[in-house]
Amino acid sequence: VLRFEHGSGSVDKGEYKHYMLKEIYEQPRVVHAAMEGRLGAERVLEEAFGVTAPAIFDQVRQVQIVACGTSYHAGLIAKYWIEDLAGIPCMVEVASEFRYRKVVLPKGTLFISISQSGETADTLAALREVRDRILASLTICNVPGSSLVRESDLCLMTNAGPEIGVASTKAFTTQLVALLMTTLVLGRRHELTPETEARIVADLKTLPGLLEQVLGLDSAIEKMAEAFAEKQHALFLGRGTLNPVAMEGALKLKEISYIHAEAYAAGELKHGPLALVDKDMPVVTVAPRNEMLDKLKANLQEVRARGGELFVFAGSRQEVQPEEGVQVLELPPMPGILEPIVYTLPLQLLSYHVAVLKGTDVDQPRNLAKSVTVE
Amino acid sequence: VLRFEHGSGSVDKGEYKHYMLKEIYEQPRVVHAAMEGRLGAERVLEEAFGVTAPAIFDQVRQVQIVACGTSYHAGLIAKYWIEDLAGIPCMVEVASEFRYRKVVLPKGTLFISISQSGETADTLAALREVRDRILASLTICNVPGSSLVRESDLCLMTNAGPEIGVASTKAFTTQLVALLMTTLVLGRRHELTPETEARIVADLKTLPGLLEQVLGLDSAIEKMAEAFAEKQHALFLGRGTLNPVAMEGALKLKEISYIHAEAYAAGELKHGPLALVDKDMPVVTVAPRNEMLDKLKANLQEVRARGGELFVFAGSRQEVQPEEGVQVLELPPMPGILEPIVYTLPLQLLSYHVAVLKGTDVDQPRNLAKSVTVE
Repeated sequence: VLRFEHGSGSVDKGEYKHYMLKEIYEQPRVVHAAMEGRLGAERVLEEAFGVTAPAIFDQVRQVQIVACGTSYHAGLIAKYWIEDLAGIPCMVEVASEFRYRKVVLPKGTLFISISQSGETADTLAALREVRDRILASLTICNVPGSSLVRESDLCLMTNAGPEIGVASTKAFTTQLVALLMTTLVLGRRHELTPETEARIVADLKTLPGLLEQVLGLDSAIEKMAEAFAEKQHALFLGRGTLNPVAMEGALKLKEISYIHAEAYAAGELKHGPLALVDKDMPVVTVAPRNEMLDKLKANLQEVRARGGELFVFAGSRQEVQPEEGVQVLELPPMPGILEPIVYTLPLQLLSYHVAVLKGTDVDQPRNLAKSVTVE
Repeated sequence: VLRFEHGSGSVDKGEYKHYMLKEIYEQPRVVHAAMEGRLGAERVLEEAFGVTAPAIFDQVRQVQIVACGTSYHAGLIAKYWIEDLAGIPCMVEVASEFRYRKVVLPKGTLFISISQSGETADTLAALREVRDRILASLTICNVPGSSLVRESDLCLMTNAGPEIGVASTKAFTTQLVALLMTTLVLGRRHELTPETEARIVADLKTLPGLLEQVLGLDSAIEKMAEAFAEKQHALFLGRGTLNPVAMEGALKLKEISYIHAEAYAAGELKHGPLALVDKDMPVVTVAPRNEMLDKLKANLQEVRARGGELFVFAGSRQEVQPEEGVQVLELPPMPGILEPIVYTLPLQLLSYHVAVLKGTDVDQPRNLAKSVTVE
């Protein structure tokens, strides 16, 4: 059994101050590793999922994703992709809820588990609970030979290499690459055209370069982090596939800086959380495209009117003007499908730099373990 | 067109200091009104949904619920009920996300909208977006003649009467009653036995009395509220149908006391939010049954070890001992199916008393409107 999980003293931080920073910077390379040997010129090579995969995929009529924490956020993004591109229903649920209720699993359900370690107790228990009632199980996992890999019918390894920092970074972005490839192999059996698949495969190949470009924003983000060091709260907003990215950004900030960051679907702001906004509650928005930002603008004005500081991660053709209380960080233009992967990076860097400023133990945050292997 | 919505000067607070408190206290009466004429001796009278309802219900194969804010939380609870009792798939989504993505709506989908006002912009837009692709639409609504009522194929009025407080209380619990009745009429066409339906109908008839009993805890809750008045944060935990109740409890506290309260499925605690817990972060748990609390106990010990204060709303045969830093409030024994409805009440009272202690404008919290009729 091959294992190279957490705690291995042989993994070196190299030039980096923390494992987390090293792992953030590894992302251009590991997303490439997650695709290597799996992408043809115009399509995903579905043999990567195992020899029995094609026959199983032929029978899939819907997808049930189960995961915890950061992996759950990856699953939420996959739901948008699968319903949009494949046109089949996709349900996503945290494992600790899924396993304890009577779930309905229609005929032809592919059960997808997502777990960095492959040992997450609730996720593993969920698989065992439903094994006899599903078409097949697929795990998206980073540790070869782990329990989820051994007990699932199919697996797609994320190839991120050992992740030491407790706050997951490269495991998440490689999970997204794996889930996008999964969407394509499912989609081609349903609504996805060869042309769209070819375009997305070409898009995926630009991902390492885009991540490299975004790493170039590191010093700007380090500067931005200063505004958070004295704060106790933050609100993260997104729409569509950027909504789970906002959730992941808030979770990172929670985990390592102990700032109470919470994410909301931007459209829900007026249904409650807007009451919280004042000068002590900075608001972070991930809004690559203008049409998303247009819908946010009225809310953003309310945030400004109440003295809330705004931090906007936006696309290059963006129309948000930086002004007093509004910081805008422009990301390069990119294919819409890659936005949730690429926009994750600046939020990882933001939480990293805030934690460093606050002097917390970045790689070993209080109260948390790398893998939650007990219930 | 009959309208008696917010802002009506003719609605009197009577003996109560605030509309919100009055509306909390009306709940025993209005949940009765929500059931009146709709429950036979052993079954729900499905004519209450409209003359065409029985023929439509015969064809339902799955349910898609769409709502915002508090109504969304009601929908999340209904998912547990519908999958457990009817055994058909149920999806739930916030309207502002649902309306802007390509959603998959399998054949035989009943679209259920939930809205106090019947004018919630995103929810109404979601209905209009999918109208041609669904089996039928049902709205669970409190305002007769509202847009959602007029534009839906079926409606079940919640009969809560005018709700003036911006923070929704009686609208939520009557929505839950309506959703439980909906679950029964759908369920009897699938996996629900007449015996189970008869038992739940009998349970529902005990609801007003149970709510009345819980109102008797008001002064104990008022005392408990003192611990929150100086706090800036709170964490709410629940499992199963009590998970959305925790979400609703956190939203109430956010809306009217401006305390940054956040809810988590209890099983997700170790996947991140536990890092936040310290003496400044009180933790509220709703855990009616021992088996839920058993799973929480290890987490609760960690909360205590970090100096976090615990507030537990628990069932009467509970084994949590009150001790330094652990306050336990016992609720009466009740049928499991009613727990999410009944356990909502103490959380409403808690947020109300915290807001009063903080001196906020309880009925008109800053930044919020009663009905979000613009996007």
